[in-house]
Amino acid sequence: MKSPICDMLGIDFPLLAFSHCRDVVAAVSRAGGFGVLGATAHSPETLEQELKWIDAHVDDKPYGIDVLIPENISTAGEKNVTWKSLEARVSQEHRDFTRNLLKKYDIELTSRNVADNQPQPFDAETALQLLEVSFRHPIRLIANALGVPPKAMIEMGRKHGVPVAALVGSKEHALRQVAAGVDILVAQGTEAGGHCGEVSTMVLVPEVIKAVKRIRDVPVLAAGGIMTGSQMAACMAMGAAGAWTGSVWLATVESETSEIFRAKMIAASSRDAVRSKGRTGKPARQLRSVWTDAWDRSPESPGALPMPLQSIISRDAFNAIDRSAAAGNEKARDLVSYFVGQGVGLVDSVKSAGAVVQEFKEEFIEAVEHMNALVAE
Amino acid sequence: MKSPICDMLGIDFPLLAFSHCRDVVAAVSRAGGFGVLGATAHSPETLEQELKWIDAHVDDKPYGIDVLIPENISTAGEKNVTWKSLEARVSQEHRDFTRNLLKKYDIELTSRNVADNQPQPFDAETALQLLEVSFRHPIRLIANALGVPPKAMIEMGRKHGVPVAALVGSKEHALRQVAAGVDILVAQGTEAGGHCGEVSTMVLVPEVIKAVKRIRDVPVLAAGGIMTGSQMAACMAMGAAGAWTGSVWLATVESETSEIFRAKMIAASSRDAVRSKGRTGKPARQLRSVWTDAWDRSPESPGALPMPLQSIISRDAFNAIDRSAAAGNEKARDLVSYFVGQGVGLVDSVKSAGAVVQEFKEEFIEAVEHMNALVAE
Repeated sequence: MKSPICDMLGIDFPLLAFSHCRDVVAAVSRAGGFGVLGATAHSPETLEQELKWIDAHVDDKPYGIDVLIPENISTAGEKNVTWKSLEARVSQEHRDFTRNLLKKYDIELTSRNVADNQPQPFDAETALQLLEVSFRHPIRLIANALGVPPKAMIEMGRKHGVPVAALVGSKEHALRQVAAGVDILVAQGTEAGGHCGEVSTMVLVPEVIKAVKRIRDVPVLAAGGIMTGSQMAACMAMGAAGAWTGSVWLATVESETSEIFRAKMIAASSRDAVRSKGRTGKPARQLRSVWTDAWDRSPESPGALPMPLQSIISRDAFNAIDRSAAAGNEKARDLVSYFVGQGVGLVDSVKSAGAVVQEFKEEFIEAVEHMNALVAE
Repeated sequence: MKSPICDMLGIDFPLLAFSHCRDVVAAVSRAGGFGVLGATAHSPETLEQELKWIDAHVDDKPYGIDVLIPENISTAGEKNVTWKSLEARVSQEHRDFTRNLLKKYDIELTSRNVADNQPQPFDAETALQLLEVSFRHPIRLIANALGVPPKAMIEMGRKHGVPVAALVGSKEHALRQVAAGVDILVAQGTEAGGHCGEVSTMVLVPEVIKAVKRIRDVPVLAAGGIMTGSQMAACMAMGAAGAWTGSVWLATVESETSEIFRAKMIAASSRDAVRSKGRTGKPARQLRSVWTDAWDRSPESPGALPMPLQSIISRDAFNAIDRSAAAGNEKARDLVSYFVGQGVGLVDSVKSAGAVVQEFKEEFIEAVEHMNALVAE
């Protein structure tokens, strides 16, 4: 396809797939899309293993990695923040609320299984170490979410000749990112899974393209709600350079999601994907469950803590919830949730990642043919 | 264009324009689109005048009307509800809050200038009378928002051979409307101005199309955020039969909006269009102003009253606000607001309605050409 992003990334079909699962990343790239591995949860050591695996399974096709370096975080400026030091900042009220909530569903909140001295999630230093590991592999893209990437990240990209992408949820953020020197923008609408703003994809994509092109020629990928090739075609009709997708890969056989969550995805309508602070402390779209209702709607809710503290709470809780549900606790299913966008309403089966890429390509062509038929004399 | 909706409505280009302004309705239809007059604020007498004027200025092109019959309203089932009887239900706290808010901006809240015995806004009986008036004119469409239209409305449409359209914000609502017998669905995303749901246009349009086609072949128009021909093309690439638009016409020279509001539209970004109960008591997207902040964010806010009571408050208040701002009270500008969608972020000038239709057509063709260039070998 003749989109400038294709040359930048070395691909033919500008379908980018964000996933925490190496199998999805490799499968998408092999099928002609572009897999992007979410690296934030990894240590440098485990990331090295993942990338080695991808290199062995990606048939020399290009792929990228994504980190998450929040510009605004309650621990900003602090050094050596560990899980242990963060745990001490979680109030007894929040502990009790969580413990009691899980107890109602017959789930016991056991202590976490991460080393106490492990750096906190979303640590900028760790993220830069992850990037260093990544540059020892043939990555073709580094992406960042939750704010302008640190200068060091942009410089590392430049040094290695690897483009730097940034996710944005508003025109104002896009302009700041362009000023900071990013190479690719991902304009992500409010319908997206995970951290998201309030502006919809339909408006955000043309708004960002219009604002940015006055300054510098930066390709804009569309994100938020895109689950099909016709939606991808729609975004490119508005001038997007391609599509950045996430939720659609959660319903693939390769995905890291549990069978229980996939069943919930198939049953869900778009309205079940709610924007809540209950998982990370920042507004993030996720499947509505007893968990989100408890934090957002219950009169007893103590309110979500700021990032990264709410993640400390929810990681332990969801480890327990998922384990209990998988062990057959039917009540635990009511709590099961994960980041997912409104596009969940379009999911009606679980497919292989390669089949999804193939469907995107076919639907894209069909959409173009449909447009031509509409305007034919 | 070869969309089935074109035959149904007698048009070539399926761009529907909702407006409260007869000039916009006539101008859009003359230019090859399809104007839809918002009739709800009218009495049968004033609507008769408006339609007579349109008939004299529309060059025999087709047009339609839109009423608003809320399925859920606090006065449901009551007869002979007048402005006067509703006024008595507004609490002193809400009166004081409004009066004090306006006072801070040097605006005096004068008594309203509608007859006390005028039926309440959103009265179903009045709406049906408006439809009767309309059928004496060559209307080609009747549309309804805020729920399933009364059976009488669908029967009136059928009797006169005029299709009935319904606005929906979710798949679940769409299925109820199809079961009730509507002929056309308008799938309106959360980014739309006025009353709106929570699902974005990018997701809602394919979700509704997919759900509905299993039951009956009902054309689905896309709405929410659509301000340009390339966005319209995007929606049709996803299978929409055409586009339903609103906000874009507020920035036309023919529009009923004030110069002050249009200047605010040009200055606004998409994030300034907020979903608030502050104007009607139901979530409706409107330009953020001191008014919406006061009702939604101020700790002193008594909270919006249910429909129709909040409209009683806001109509009187905005009459006073707009009059004061127009008379040169600079402080009053901070309160000025009106229903508008996130697409406001794409407005950068005021044009004639005819020119906007022409631009839609050109951008639509350009979008199709762009798609073809992308996939060309």
